[in-house]
Amino acid sequence: MASLPKRITKSSLKSFLDSFDNVLTDCDGVLWTGDDVIGKANTTLNHLQKLGKKVFLVTNNSTKSREDYVLKCEKLGFEIPSKEHIVSSGYVLAEYLRQQNFKKKVYVVGTPGMCKELENVGVSCFHVGGEQTEGNVLNMIADIKLDPEVGAVAVGFDPHFCFPKIMRAGSYLNNPECLFLATNTDERFPVANGPLVFPGTGCLVRCVETVAERPPIIMGKPSPKMFSVISEKNNLLPSRTLMIGDRSNTDILFGKNCGLHTLVVLSGVTSMSDLETWAASTDTEKHRLLADYYLEEIGDLLSLLNADKAE
Amino acid sequence: MASLPKRITKSSLKSFLDSFDNVLTDCDGVLWTGDDVIGKANTTLNHLQKLGKKVFLVTNNSTKSREDYVLKCEKLGFEIPSKEHIVSSGYVLAEYLRQQNFKKKVYVVGTPGMCKELENVGVSCFHVGGEQTEGNVLNMIADIKLDPEVGAVAVGFDPHFCFPKIMRAGSYLNNPECLFLATNTDERFPVANGPLVFPGTGCLVRCVETVAERPPIIMGKPSPKMFSVISEKNNLLPSRTLMIGDRSNTDILFGKNCGLHTLVVLSGVTSMSDLETWAASTDTEKHRLLADYYLEEIGDLLSLLNADKAE
Repeated sequence: MASLPKRITKSSLKSFLDSFDNVLTDCDGVLWTGDDVIGKANTTLNHLQKLGKKVFLVTNNSTKSREDYVLKCEKLGFEIPSKEHIVSSGYVLAEYLRQQNFKKKVYVVGTPGMCKELENVGVSCFHVGGEQTEGNVLNMIADIKLDPEVGAVAVGFDPHFCFPKIMRAGSYLNNPECLFLATNTDERFPVANGPLVFPGTGCLVRCVETVAERPPIIMGKPSPKMFSVISEKNNLLPSRTLMIGDRSNTDILFGKNCGLHTLVVLSGVTSMSDLETWAASTDTEKHRLLADYYLEEIGDLLSLLNADKAE
Repeated sequence: MASLPKRITKSSLKSFLDSFDNVLTDCDGVLWTGDDVIGKANTTLNHLQKLGKKVFLVTNNSTKSREDYVLKCEKLGFEIPSKEHIVSSGYVLAEYLRQQNFKKKVYVVGTPGMCKELENVGVSCFHVGGEQTEGNVLNMIADIKLDPEVGAVAVGFDPHFCFPKIMRAGSYLNNPECLFLATNTDERFPVANGPLVFPGTGCLVRCVETVAERPPIIMGKPSPKMFSVISEKNNLLPSRTLMIGDRSNTDILFGKNCGLHTLVVLSGVTSMSDLETWAASTDTEKHRLLADYYLEEIGDLLSLLNADKAE
């Protein structure tokens, strides 16, 4: 039996706040759901910055460019100083290729936002948007022309994912020299107030890795690549950094993989019953999913801070 | 080091032929590639039947109904007595639901041929063909209406596989009562004379199982379900049955799982270097991929038979 995360209380608040200078936080499920702010997430994050904490948004979502994120933050009342405070899996992917001095072309199974990040670092890429999937398979084969300049396939979230894209990706990856990169392996997202389940990038990645018969290099959480990109530019000490997230198998594991303090919020994927199951498990891998602290939602921090101030 | 399959020779031919009464054979890669007969596969299979062997076609391909297969066989010169001699993964799936006395509706990620098999046994189903995958994700969510009568999701080969289908499948499967069935897990197919790789049903199955967060029940080879369907109706003795296939991880493993004699032909997926790698491996699971016999192609059996006759 491993220990459950500790709930932050009025009495533990000061030592908690004193333990870090930097906050890394996930977005979907912590700060917002779609275009709706979760509780007082915006005021809370702004307040943490007023207390002198450096805040960075760390997201596996690759659909938007960092510029798009800055705009979204402004719209939703989050005061983020600049795009340097945003690390998306699409940006990490672009940084990775830049560091490798990659000179060929990338076939992107993803969105224009992902391409924009690649173009920002001077990497050529192309993606195919929505396409008509009618017609028979033999016509499909005839229509697919491979570009000999492609040297990497990058898979991110793509709402226009379809059979011809799997075929293009698999055909490029049949060349063992062709790099295979993926933004993340998040399996699914709950859709607010409905019976629908929203497939995550992980579904698309598993599909392409099956035809490729090899696994991709993963850029997003829980891979520590996202931390190395920020910490290199901002000189962050892991022991003085807190990671906040709602999905334990990505966010919290990422925090543990990087040696950060961890806080799980129950406003997204992970529930209290998940935490109890993992704590009771004999599998030590499950114990690694247990954060140091928990709160129902990030705004609870603000309530505690105000409560603290009022005394 | 395990033993490599033995090549059938003029001198071993008689004891080989005497060892079985029934022949189960895979189709793609053994009998044909697309619409082209492989060598003298048709004459060979017809000859085996003249020798008194009962022949059954056993295929993981779910795109055609058994009636379609009979027509294809006629066109390509294979004399197959009736559709009772054809066992496709789509047919096994339908038989499985019939045996379960399934009364709800099936959401099919697959082809009209798969639906036809279900309708043949009185199971209601529906599938969505090609669809336009343009437009944004929120419109996509709005367009998806779940049918409350659906009690099973069946995944087979589907050239119109796309994001909305993954979402529908994942949403139905979010109900733990909803059955999850798949025709097969074949990963990929080589495309003749070209650089393209053709994704197999396995890619689509991995994708849907990722969003479903649970594995499907697999109907096709190497699952022994396909053998139980034929042997029940035809009273086949495993020890008097030969399985011929080109893909060791499905066909040959299927033969082993059912206690059949096995013959691998090198006219499709498995190559001699695969056989050598598996024989040299210390992993005993790899040894299970090694057939009893091998031939370059099924037509070589005819050459041996004629050579035999000429003596």
